[in-house]
Amino acid sequence: MKPLDTVAILGVGLIGGSVGLALRKRKLARQVVGLGRNSSHLRSARRRGAVTATSTRWRTGGAGADLVVVCTPVGQIVDHVRTLAESCTGPTLITDVGSTKQHIVESLSGKLPPHVQFVGSHPMSGSEKTGVRYSRDDLFNGRVAIVTPGPDTQKESLKSICRFWEALGSRVITMTPDLHDEAVGAVSHLPHVAATVLAAVTRSQDQQLVASGWLDTTRVAAGDPRLWQQIFEDNKGHVLKSIDQFTELLGQFRDALAKDDRRTVSRILKAGKRNRDALGS
Amino acid sequence: MKPLDTVAILGVGLIGGSVGLALRKRKLARQVVGLGRNSSHLRSARRRGAVTATSTRWRTGGAGADLVVVCTPVGQIVDHVRTLAESCTGPTLITDVGSTKQHIVESLSGKLPPHVQFVGSHPMSGSEKTGVRYSRDDLFNGRVAIVTPGPDTQKESLKSICRFWEALGSRVITMTPDLHDEAVGAVSHLPHVAATVLAAVTRSQDQQLVASGWLDTTRVAAGDPRLWQQIFEDNKGHVLKSIDQFTELLGQFRDALAKDDRRTVSRILKAGKRNRDALGS
Repeated sequence: MKPLDTVAILGVGLIGGSVGLALRKRKLARQVVGLGRNSSHLRSARRRGAVTATSTRWRTGGAGADLVVVCTPVGQIVDHVRTLAESCTGPTLITDVGSTKQHIVESLSGKLPPHVQFVGSHPMSGSEKTGVRYSRDDLFNGRVAIVTPGPDTQKESLKSICRFWEALGSRVITMTPDLHDEAVGAVSHLPHVAATVLAAVTRSQDQQLVASGWLDTTRVAAGDPRLWQQIFEDNKGHVLKSIDQFTELLGQFRDALAKDDRRTVSRILKAGKRNRDALGS
Repeated sequence: MKPLDTVAILGVGLIGGSVGLALRKRKLARQVVGLGRNSSHLRSARRRGAVTATSTRWRTGGAGADLVVVCTPVGQIVDHVRTLAESCTGPTLITDVGSTKQHIVESLSGKLPPHVQFVGSHPMSGSEKTGVRYSRDDLFNGRVAIVTPGPDTQKESLKSICRFWEALGSRVITMTPDLHDEAVGAVSHLPHVAATVLAAVTRSQDQQLVASGWLDTTRVAAGDPRLWQQIFEDNKGHVLKSIDQFTELLGQFRDALAKDDRRTVSRILKAGKRNRDALGS
């Protein structure tokens, strides 16, 4: 990617801050402007070196930027992109980092000024931690970033966003917003549901006994409940389908154990190990 | 704990090897004898420094030891303890490291020669890894070890086994075998079931998209299916109960999401985060 002049980042938490740090570390932008409502958050981001300038007048903060990266919670992304686009006078590319894509891409399709192009992204680099203090310049390095073109995405814009994530070190995969939502419903949203329910069902008197197994299996349940509620609501159909597939196999395991069907118990244990072993530590 | 003369360890894999390494590092035994069927495994354990001597004549290998630690899979522990006890001529203490306790403690109660005492243990220090090459001298350090006296356990024997795990660095909790099995059914066996089913249900085409959330949540599914099958069968009643409680709350979450009951979704997400946050990283 040819270095950009100005990149604006709306929302400088874990992900937005890491985008800024990675851009600066790799010298990919002359100027990185942090946008947001909360001036103390913005000051923290600047002190951390994630941005070179800040503005709480975020609505007009995309004017003059080559690229705007919207790093706000899933439920607000559509509104934020629309608002930012209004003040863009020259050709501007906007992307986001939301964990769902279909609703966002559909809602923005055909709704932006012709000189503004939106291409949805989802870097698979989250964490249960939140806030710019956990941001890292290598957060995207070696990780997958999914880019989800819609029916009216221009080829050049798609290529630019793919190059952007590649420049941050990511392995880029493109897929339609719908296929994205189905896939992350299965490999990201479903594990979050399972971890949450596991943690929530744990009785207080048993907590003194938790060991590494419980801690690993429930780790993501420490994520922000408000953010995750928006994700689940936004991807409701696929999340419900994934929960149902999980519940079906869990029921098979349960019934096999109950009736001493050792072959089925063994088959599921081996299938789980095979898939887990295939994906490294 | 006063240093012992001879400790015998039957089964020198991850746990048995770590017992040996910890005993030697902390100078708690003059001699550590590794017992087993497989001479090449025993040689590996000796090369690693986990044991000072080895014997494949494991049946009589407890004779002369002050303490025998049985580190074989749950399904074999009862037989192994009985066999080892037969050749003990002097006063001998035997413990184990199995993940279930009720069946083991009950099966051995009143079945051993009067000079042999068995006290069940469960160090909560496992890993999805197996084999002596992953053993560590600090595996038990700062971790919980549960000791489960039965109705005929002598006070002195119980105290000795508690001191043994404390000497290895563990925080010891004593509880009845039944309460142990109920608690670990909830905080260890249930997470293993959930992780296994999550990993097993993952479609091959989605595997390229897994990120840290999936990897953490499914980590324990890499454990040995044969070992876990024995654990689930041995603790069937409590595991089924834990699966049912989990399935019940998962169903509540699913239905709340389906009918846009935001309050219930939020309540479960917050309960999960609260419990997870309470237990550190």
